[in-house]
Amino acid sequence: MLDEAKALDAADPLRAYRDQFDLPEGVIYLDGNSLGALPKRTRGRLQQVVDTEWGDGLIRSWNSADWIGTPQRIGAKIAPLIGAQSHEVIACDSVSVNLTKLIGAALKMRPGRTVILSEPGNFPTDLYMIQGLAGQGMAEQRLAHRDQIIEGLNEDVALLMLTHVHYKTGAMFDMAALTKAAHDAGALVLWDLSHSGGAVPVDLNECDADFAVGCGYKYLNGGPGAPAYAYVAERHHETFQQPITGWMGHARPFAFSDEYEPAEGVSRMLAGTPPILAMAALESGVELMAEIGMEPLVAKSRALSEFFRTAMAEHCPQMEPVSPAHPTQRGSQLSYYHPEAYAICQALIARGIIGDFRDPDVLRFGFAPAYVSFEDAGKAVAALKEILETGAWDRPEFKQRAAVT
Amino acid sequence: MLDEAKALDAADPLRAYRDQFDLPEGVIYLDGNSLGALPKRTRGRLQQVVDTEWGDGLIRSWNSADWIGTPQRIGAKIAPLIGAQSHEVIACDSVSVNLTKLIGAALKMRPGRTVILSEPGNFPTDLYMIQGLAGQGMAEQRLAHRDQIIEGLNEDVALLMLTHVHYKTGAMFDMAALTKAAHDAGALVLWDLSHSGGAVPVDLNECDADFAVGCGYKYLNGGPGAPAYAYVAERHHETFQQPITGWMGHARPFAFSDEYEPAEGVSRMLAGTPPILAMAALESGVELMAEIGMEPLVAKSRALSEFFRTAMAEHCPQMEPVSPAHPTQRGSQLSYYHPEAYAICQALIARGIIGDFRDPDVLRFGFAPAYVSFEDAGKAVAALKEILETGAWDRPEFKQRAAVT
Repeated sequence: MLDEAKALDAADPLRAYRDQFDLPEGVIYLDGNSLGALPKRTRGRLQQVVDTEWGDGLIRSWNSADWIGTPQRIGAKIAPLIGAQSHEVIACDSVSVNLTKLIGAALKMRPGRTVILSEPGNFPTDLYMIQGLAGQGMAEQRLAHRDQIIEGLNEDVALLMLTHVHYKTGAMFDMAALTKAAHDAGALVLWDLSHSGGAVPVDLNECDADFAVGCGYKYLNGGPGAPAYAYVAERHHETFQQPITGWMGHARPFAFSDEYEPAEGVSRMLAGTPPILAMAALESGVELMAEIGMEPLVAKSRALSEFFRTAMAEHCPQMEPVSPAHPTQRGSQLSYYHPEAYAICQALIARGIIGDFRDPDVLRFGFAPAYVSFEDAGKAVAALKEILETGAWDRPEFKQRAAVT
Repeated sequence: MLDEAKALDAADPLRAYRDQFDLPEGVIYLDGNSLGALPKRTRGRLQQVVDTEWGDGLIRSWNSADWIGTPQRIGAKIAPLIGAQSHEVIACDSVSVNLTKLIGAALKMRPGRTVILSEPGNFPTDLYMIQGLAGQGMAEQRLAHRDQIIEGLNEDVALLMLTHVHYKTGAMFDMAALTKAAHDAGALVLWDLSHSGGAVPVDLNECDADFAVGCGYKYLNGGPGAPAYAYVAERHHETFQQPITGWMGHARPFAFSDEYEPAEGVSRMLAGTPPILAMAALESGVELMAEIGMEPLVAKSRALSEFFRTAMAEHCPQMEPVSPAHPTQRGSQLSYYHPEAYAICQALIARGIIGDFRDPDVLRFGFAPAYVSFEDAGKAVAALKEILETGAWDRPEFKQRAAVT
């Protein structure tokens, strides 16, 4: 298995990019779908922002370093990774906050319809944002299992809101088909790309999607809690109104007018002042992904996860696969059930192999294509085989839960 | 004037703190009320977060570096600066987003009342957040001039929402009196402390305030676009419901439940994943302010702004004062009208003296007490006198407007 892995690494067109990341010695990192690794260039970029732009430039850097243009500039760099035009994407706030904005916008665009349709088991924050607006009497939550979503689409539905790649199972929706079904029912569609952007093929324009949001700290390597991004299709730019109308989304913020007037297009998604330090790290991560380009990232992601899946089936049959077997039907991750998933995850971490655990019994391995090698994947399978065969997970210290699991 | 300034500096108990900041050579910085200066310690703290916590610790740092506790930890450090208990304050999102959350919470707590009362000319984002919710049919904006606010309080008002220190004039509201008047009318009160926290005395508990928000990037020196903070009085902790119910505000975020259940107390203000790099810089700035303590900061702020105000009256009578003359009635800033305020501001900047301009004709000088010296203030007045007397502002390059003014 390891010989095969080494051969695959030798032939990997992305192998040089691994050196663009600062990966700790002795660690195999299969959790880039939770927090992306540190691009080496980010260190220098942050130093520049802190020392030169903030320290020396002070307030002047809003102009001289174009801090003010950061959200749109990063959005334009993300756009080609998700099949969008550069002026349709903006970096701002968190996924949660951007969901509230876009649910609000959709409700305004579909007067008389109040239902937001999603699936049970969606990433929690997506459902919670619907529930928050429901608590204000603005929206109604409807959940339909993924094979019954089309039946759930009726004349009450303002918005179909789904996560493209499921955070836990890795299962990927057919974006084009579901978008079309929602439009046929008169609803708008919002795709959460948190587990997609930078890892799987996404073509928002081709699919005719209305809205999307996505995460900056996973496959875009923007740093812990990096700002998120949002997409609004050009055809809605004139008309959409989102409810969190902060001054940075005003047509002329520095006129300090009492009356809100939305900025043009996607810029009206902005609310408060962007966190420039966090944005700089995000921009650095996004630039690296954009340099590599989606095609080789997708090819590597599929080859790498297939290698892992095949090796797992052979060497660790005790782990029950959760994710779709076909690489075009899943994200860049593979999940497995095991009743002792938590302890197994801890035993792997103790051996320097970082995957992650999802309550109550799922082990999840992410394959960030820019820096994970086939050898990493092979070594992880070998370690897991040893842990399972020797029962090495069965120790009290591996069963004690931490605050963040 | 400069001899007096030097004597005042020599006697200044805060003079040693100036060295804790990285101020560029040849610059006099009177805009710390817009963007605070770089604390030297922040550089090292960020390096630690990037290299050790993100680079080496990766996902494990949510536990091992207590990233997960960051919002509450910073909130507890801000609390003594604003007269709050440590569990009443949390750092998160932007001022704009936090305003939306707390307006939403207030509307839920005052069913049947829909009016949010504020003043015209409040900082724009404050009014825009009301207008955004009004656009969703949730709220109604009512504006009353500052001397007519009490008359504006009736049984329709859910929330009185004011900025404690006015961003443009520096005028400071009587927080205790207005809070009492609002409560007498059955309304709740939200104070925006953006221009107060870290510079003027604030005692939210003593004033019986319900809610507050504030800015991290001004007197708290948290870096450009630093996350904001929010205060919720303990008596509302059991009952308040804010509408942006993200997963980080859930009682058990890592249970990944489909049903939102609010975390205890102020923690339910959280929405998405906190931007850890930006939060680390904020924490570093806040720690420095907390070390100095509010009493010496307030004393210095008053002495410094009084020195500047007196010198301006003597040397620059062409500038018409906008701010209240008495130091207990204003923030740590002084504003002046002049029809050529923009060009004068640029001429000052060309001489290394950074104040700022507020549309259409106001020059604003901020006195960040931790690092601005009396000599800085004296030199600024001397330069302004020279600019006014020689007409040095009257050059085309000083009249060309930049994107951010």
